Amino acid sequence: MTSILVLNGPNLNLLGVREPAVYGAATLDDVRELCEAAGRRVGHAIDFRQSNHEGVLIDWIHEAGTAHRAGSLLGLVFNAGAYTHTSLALHDAVKGAGVPMIEVHISNVHAREPFRHHSYLSPAAAGIVVGFGIDGYALAIEGLARRAAAT
Amino acid sequence: MTSILVLNGPNLNLLGVREPAVYGAATLDDVRELCEAAGRRVGHAIDFRQSNHEGVLIDWIHEAGTAHRAGSLLGLVFNAGAYTHTSLALHDAVKGAGVPMIEVHISNVHAREPFRHHSYLSPAAAGIVVGFGIDGYALAIEGLARRAAAT
Amino acid sequence: MTSILVLNGPNLNLLGVREPAVYGAATLDDVRELCEAAGRRVGHAIDFRQSNHEGVLIDWIHEAGTAHRAGSLLGLVFNAGAYTHTSLALHDAVKGAGVPMIEVHISNVHAREPFRHHSYLSPAAAGIVVGFGIDGYALAIEGLARRAAAT
Amino acid sequence: MTSILVLNGPNLNLLGVREPAVYGAATLDDVRELCEAAGRRVGHAIDFRQSNHEGVLIDWIHEAGTAHRAGSLLGLVFNAGAYTHTSLALHDAVKGAGVPMIEVHISNVHAREPFRHHSYLSPAAAGIVVGFGIDGYALAIEGLARRAAAT
Amino acid sequence: MTSILVLNGPNLNLLGVREPAVYGAATLDDVRELCEAAGRRVGHAIDFRQSNHEGVLIDWIHEAGTAHRAGSLLGLVFNAGAYTHTSLALHDAVKGAGVPMIEVHISNVHAREPFRHHSYLSPAAAGIVVGFGIDGYALAIEGLARRAAAT
Amino acid sequence: MTSILVLNGPNLNLLGVREPAVYGAATLDDVRELCEAAGRRVGHAIDFRQSNHEGVLIDWIHEAGTAHRAGSLLGLVFNAGAYTHTSLALHDAVKGAGVPMIEVHISNVHAREPFRHHSYLSPAAAGIVVGFGIDGYALAIEGLARRAAAT
Amino acid sequence: MTSILVLNGPNLNLLGVREPAVYGAATLDDVRELCEAAGRRVGHAIDFRQSNHEGVLIDWIHEAGTAHRAGSLLGLVFNAGAYTHTSLALHDAVKGAGVPMIEVHISNVHAREPFRHHSYLSPAAAGIVVGFGIDGYALAIEGLARRAAAT
Amino acid sequence: MTSILVLNGPNLNLLGVREPAVYGAATLDDVRELCEAAGRRVGHAIDFRQSNHEGVLIDWIHEAGTAHRAGSLLGLVFNAGAYTHTSLALHDAVKGAGVPMIEVHISNVHAREPFRHHSYLSPAAAGIVVGFGIDGYALAIEGLARRAAAT
Amino acid sequence: MTSILVLNGPNLNLLGVREPAVYGAATLDDVRELCEAAGRRVGHAIDFRQSNHEGVLIDWIHEAGTAHRAGSLLGLVFNAGAYTHTSLALHDAVKGAGVPMIEVHISNVHAREPFRHHSYLSPAAAGIVVGFGIDGYALAIEGLARRAAAT
Amino acid sequence: MTSILVLNGPNLNLLGVREPAVYGAATLDDVRELCEAAGRRVGHAIDFRQSNHEGVLIDWIHEAGTAHRAGSLLGLVFNAGAYTHTSLALHDAVKGAGVPMIEVHISNVHAREPFRHHSYLSPAAAGIVVGFGIDGYALAIEGLARRAAAT
Amino acid sequence: MTSILVLNGPNLNLLGVREPAVYGAATLDDVRELCEAAGRRVGHAIDFRQSNHEGVLIDWIHEAGTAHRAGSLLGLVFNAGAYTHTSLALHDAVKGAGVPMIEVHISNVHAREPFRHHSYLSPAAAGIVVGFGIDGYALAIEGLARRAAAT
Amino acid sequence: MTSILVLNGPNLNLLGVREPAVYGAATLDDVRELCEAAGRRVGHAIDFRQSNHEGVLIDWIHEAGTAHRAGSLLGLVFNAGAYTHTSLALHDAVKGAGVPMIEVHISNVHAREPFRHHSYLSPAAAGIVVGFGIDGYALAIEGLARRAAAT
Repeated sequence: MTSILVLNGPNLNLLGVREPAVYGAATLDDVRELCEAAGRRVGHAIDFRQSNHEGVLIDWIHEAGTAHRAGSLLGLVFNAGAYTHTSLALHDAVKGAGVPMIEVHISNVHAREPFRHHSYLSPAAAGIVVGFGIDGYALAIEGLARRAAAT
Repeated sequence: MTSILVLNGPNLNLLGVREPAVYGAATLDDVRELCEAAGRRVGHAIDFRQSNHEGVLIDWIHEAGTAHRAGSLLGLVFNAGAYTHTSLALHDAVKGAGVPMIEVHISNVHAREPFRHHSYLSPAAAGIVVGFGIDGYALAIEGLARRAAAT
Repeated sequence: MTSILVLNGPNLNLLGVREPAVYGAATLDDVRELCEAAGRRVGHAIDFRQSNHEGVLIDWIHEAGTAHRAGSLLGLVFNAGAYTHTSLALHDAVKGAGVPMIEVHISNVHAREPFRHHSYLSPAAAGIVVGFGIDGYALAIEGLARRAAAT
Repeated sequence: MTSILVLNGPNLNLLGVREPAVYGAATLDDVRELCEAAGRRVGHAIDFRQSNHEGVLIDWIHEAGTAHRAGSLLGLVFNAGAYTHTSLALHDAVKGAGVPMIEVHISNVHAREPFRHHSYLSPAAAGIVVGFGIDGYALAIEGLARRAAAT
Repeated sequence: MTSILVLNGPNLNLLGVREPAVYGAATLDDVRELCEAAGRRVGHAIDFRQSNHEGVLIDWIHEAGTAHRAGSLLGLVFNAGAYTHTSLALHDAVKGAGVPMIEVHISNVHAREPFRHHSYLSPAAAGIVVGFGIDGYALAIEGLARRAAAT
Repeated sequence: MTSILVLNGPNLNLLGVREPAVYGAATLDDVRELCEAAGRRVGHAIDFRQSNHEGVLIDWIHEAGTAHRAGSLLGLVFNAGAYTHTSLALHDAVKGAGVPMIEVHISNVHAREPFRHHSYLSPAAAGIVVGFGIDGYALAIEGLARRAAAT
Repeated sequence: MTSILVLNGPNLNLLGVREPAVYGAATLDDVRELCEAAGRRVGHAIDFRQSNHEGVLIDWIHEAGTAHRAGSLLGLVFNAGAYTHTSLALHDAVKGAGVPMIEVHISNVHAREPFRHHSYLSPAAAGIVVGFGIDGYALAIEGLARRAAAT
Repeated sequence: MTSILVLNGPNLNLLGVREPAVYGAATLDDVRELCEAAGRRVGHAIDFRQSNHEGVLIDWIHEAGTAHRAGSLLGLVFNAGAYTHTSLALHDAVKGAGVPMIEVHISNVHAREPFRHHSYLSPAAAGIVVGFGIDGYALAIEGLARRAAAT
Repeated sequence: MTSILVLNGPNLNLLGVREPAVYGAATLDDVRELCEAAGRRVGHAIDFRQSNHEGVLIDWIHEAGTAHRAGSLLGLVFNAGAYTHTSLALHDAVKGAGVPMIEVHISNVHAREPFRHHSYLSPAAAGIVVGFGIDGYALAIEGLARRAAAT
Repeated sequence: MTSILVLNGPNLNLLGVREPAVYGAATLDDVRELCEAAGRRVGHAIDFRQSNHEGVLIDWIHEAGTAHRAGSLLGLVFNAGAYTHTSLALHDAVKGAGVPMIEVHISNVHAREPFRHHSYLSPAAAGIVVGFGIDGYALAIEGLARRAAAT
Repeated sequence: MTSILVLNGPNLNLLGVREPAVYGAATLDDVRELCEAAGRRVGHAIDFRQSNHEGVLIDWIHEAGTAHRAGSLLGLVFNAGAYTHTSLALHDAVKGAGVPMIEVHISNVHAREPFRHHSYLSPAAAGIVVGFGIDGYALAIEGLARRAAAT
Repeated sequence: MTSILVLNGPNLNLLGVREPAVYGAATLDDVRELCEAAGRRVGHAIDFRQSNHEGVLIDWIHEAGTAHRAGSLLGLVFNAGAYTHTSLALHDAVKGAGVPMIEVHISNVHAREPFRHHSYLSPAAAGIVVGFGIDGYALAIEGLARRAAAT
């Protein structure tokens, strides 16, 4: 059974604590369970991780590229948090790893501060899901699975 | 049974004809069938329309607002085509009508020309789905239905 | 008796429904009555219209130009809504028709989002009235009438 | 009887002398009389002043705030001349004084040089009247009076 | 005999009336006759239309695409008026319809206001003719015919 | 018999060699013959030149101004190559010489790199022809001749 | 005993009255007392002034420069209010007078409107204290005194 | 006894070595001692750390948020070095952790290169101290303690 | 004998004290004597003034306009210091007063900070003299006198 | 006797012919005579040249640098025409040659098109004279001579 | 024997895997061997490293600074990958460490996306080598060695 | 034996004279000798030229293209001086001629004025060498030779 890697970037470990008016009351553990449920629906195991370190995220994306080429990983669901807007290195990592990546944002970043409107990741994404709250993770997993089935 | 209105903006009637390398070979009728299938899965009728006229799209959004307040319409799935990037009036229409709207783009607009990177609609959207090809319509319908169920 | 044409652009039919915190509780019918009262005070009939269609608004402005040259129309009071900020064609229509036009905005657009600060219509306007709520229509009608009397 | 303060900024003492093609042949005394006539129509005394000194204008606005809180001043009609485009301190003075202010411009500033298109005062204004020639002062006085009556 | 569609956008019905110092004294009927004469010289019928409605222009371009694929239409000569500078949807329509389009402007738009210097249509044009007055329509028809003959 | 001066700027001597995918296989000699044929059709001799030196081009334009005032030169057809986008001096030369100039570009510069979208020459041009391949020279010659006949 | 000059710019006389949500409930007299207390702690007399007039502020800074060179003034604590963002002349006055200046802002200007993010004074400052409320004046006085002691 | 966390970002371990003309001759150990002395004056223990790793800094800020909510940490004094100008993730970490943070810069960043004028951290700061050399750390600690005492 | 008014703006009273590396060692009294000598050479009395107050400078310019119309003042030599770069009101004063004005700068402002490169006064100047040190005042007086003699 | 080199750039040979409304009716020969008269007044021979070739101007500036170091040339008076605004190479030539250069413009470039407001030469100039008509050449020669005498 | 440190930033471990059309087929091990060969030619040992972690790279640069001051390290050859364009901290690290650094890019970054045209590192570089493929590493090592020999 | 053409642009004949603090004390003859030495090492004759004329440089590049196609020229080493930053025509010449070109700068242009940061030549370069002083010419020659050997 091929798996899906769900990556979470900086400050997402604060989910449920940090600014609940913006990000909601659910914690990152709630997101993990929601992803695992979505994974069961589409028949893929979920590998769920979080890091505040840009370099660790790059390493994991490279690892995902290797697993994808080996056929054991379907793709990547990625909420890069603030690195979305500042990290060209993550963009290069996704393109270099050659693994399909779905970009997710919990809140509607386009209704927030201007510096959250631009994403370095978007040009490298196979799909983008924004503003559905944490259900966006489930939509991303389903979309990724259907996209793979269609290819 | 409440329904979902799926609106398509300018040039989407050319789908399957226009630049298939960018937009794929499916026609707008294929999209309609895909939406109706997704509607059946989530238990909502689909009202599927297309127009090249900005004013007609505004009228339809107002109509959707009335139906939403009356409880007969769950919300709007909207691919505004090129009007996405130039029409402030559509943004005002969505906000004024007060109907939940999911913005959809077939292609990954962020990997295309710079003038397609900015969307007037996004700040007014309840969710955004980009780059999944025509399956993005299905994800939008499912996301809209689950969003309504969660409220 | 020469008349005054009061034109309303996109989404103004939602007045009283749409974002009352911004636009107030009065409906477009209330505005019509307020304009007719102002018309009676200055001795001009009021022709009051609304459309969401940019092309229809252009047609009406051309019609107003013809009536103005024929002496049956004093001028135009125009709240172009969102088209204010995006429509060069309406600017050209006003200049081409050669009819005096007073631009009106209900809310103070300069205290709102930056994309509402620029107006394509203003360089073609004979006068501008902003931020008085719907009473701005009455001021515009009075200003237009006094301007004509002064010429 | 509550009064209305009409403030005039730099170079407006040159009215009738300075560039009559742009500003017309009326002098500042003509404007004063026009304002006093409008004041009589709406039942408010007019306090009419001019200064070329930014600091003096700020002092007067503060004084107006005190009078407004004491109930002896209805509000402010303000043509700030060139300070409109460069003075953040006047914007802060109006907001700090908490007195309703109507911004007036004799000419259509949006049809002139680009550096006259932006106004620091507009976001702090209760209403804006542009391009009616000196009759704009009368419209501003009438609008201010009706606005107060409506509250 | 294949024909050529000559499309005219907003406000061009005012030709001869609107700002003759800029656009000349010829009316749109004069342009039609000039085009028909040019059509006779190159052996193609002329289908000459005007609309102020962006959506109608899009519909006509789609219709032209169908006719072009059927071999009954050689191509499009298009003066989009102010929509030239604001309509991405017309750009997409031309590219989507796949019909050769020659862009025409009567006046030298580059010697006028800055907002007339950028054209959304130009990247989709097979040829551009600017500033020859109404004779530009004849040059466009001749250029389109010779271009087709050369292919 | 008055003549027409056809000026070619930097790198146009490489025509047929340089990037044929962009500029086609015709050489500058082919262009000369095409121009001479067009000249015969409209009854004017063609004086055809090329230089890579901005100063030489300026001198030739001055010379053209003198000839035009003397009645021996109808006007100028000018493909300034890359100087189009950087040379204010050529713009001043054309305006200073007072000779009618038609600007020509072989390729559609607006569909290429952004630094080719702005032309210093356009505001000084009597007409502009873009994107017709080398046939644009013929259209420019014909347009210039008809323009002169119409004056 | 050398003294410290505490200068307050436009609208700071409104402190406690103007927008207390932003600036707090303390009045300028409270600030004066707070400064005098801080002055006593560090052993310097406090000369506390306010003006809405840019020219008066410049005169006082020049006066401070003279006193500083004479050894009777330690330096300047300066809250320039809105002139911070618009007055190059105050920047030149501080540099020209050659007196150490500590820039103070009560509120966090970087969390407010963009036009308050840039300061003309900062490049001329010996130190900057922002966002501590009125206690920032005390920190500035202490920092200035310790800075002088360290030299 | 609640403590204060003093965080130092990239390259601050080079203090005293790196560009002494800009940053002075004091080393980071000197800063630690200065902070501990200030801590003793205001009655708080100092936890002093430095890292070149953005992710480590984020982890520490999260840790500080937990300690602050538990009542064992008064707040954060943060000199983020170059990350000040590039790290949105640190901004989000401070806001997410909900811990009061005082931003410190040793040199006057506003008198240096333009790319040091903008700070991502400032909008999230409870206070900002710039340009006092290393004494700025002491002022920040004192300001933070007084701020807490005042609440 | 008609006179020439030499106006000096903010901080010029510091001349000889302020940044002598930039402005030289001469004082404003030296400039006055230099101007008076130049005045004697061209046969005009010199009225030499300085103020740090923008409003005072405006008043003096108006006064100069009146004197110029009365024939007792030849024109204005104006070094506006920092107000050059921020005061639109001085620009309007010069244009409104209708008095010929020569703009002078002691240092080469174009070789200094970018915010000194733009002058609001230049478009209203009859002549500009920059970078000659204080001898620029003499050149301006001579140029103004010769200009008047030539008219 | 040391001489002064007066250099004229592109299109200045058209003086008196080109746009006399902007540049006046005097020819370049008139300018030469005016310069020679000014040269006689200050006791320096005038070497007066014009070229439309940027390279020739650079060569002459290099030559001037050699003569200046040899003591036979006092300096350069330079009207670079349109190259003023586009030629970084001329800027480098002046700085490289190490010869004092006075920049001259006949018209007030700051009151013309925006692309004439920026000068590449100004940062390298020892003095700048703008807007005095052709008398600016005389002022420049006098200013250069007095500047040399003062050193 | 002094050594040379060759540092590789994020994603360079993917060399040979990632986008071979852009970066070529050689792996990072090939680059290491190429560097070691170049090192042998110039007589310096090569210390070759790669990391995806910005903080680790900063630590290594500090370490290099210490070794350089101790005389055991000649300098740094640095391909910072995407951090080139986003990391001010690496720029500060290089300047702070005081070690000569040669910046290397395998591909021609100036012919790629605009966000790769700006380098934070370049102002701190002792030399820059771009676009020679992996041979650029050898050129950098040779250039660094010759530069050291020349000092 | 194929040769290498080394081209030097404007002002480089001043090398050793012009701003030695920036460019060093070596003259252009020193550079020629250094290049000839490097040529001998890699086995290619060096053709070394300099011109201040943009047109002459274009002609030489065209000549180089012909020689390259004939097999007698390996490629071009080009220091375009200030034309680097302004000449699109040189960019077109290099691309049109189809000859491999290595761009060289003696100083680190990225550490100098902003207008020297952008290069029109870079996108057309086969390699770029910056900041090695005149040794950069030798590195360019070696890199060009090795690049040719590798193809």
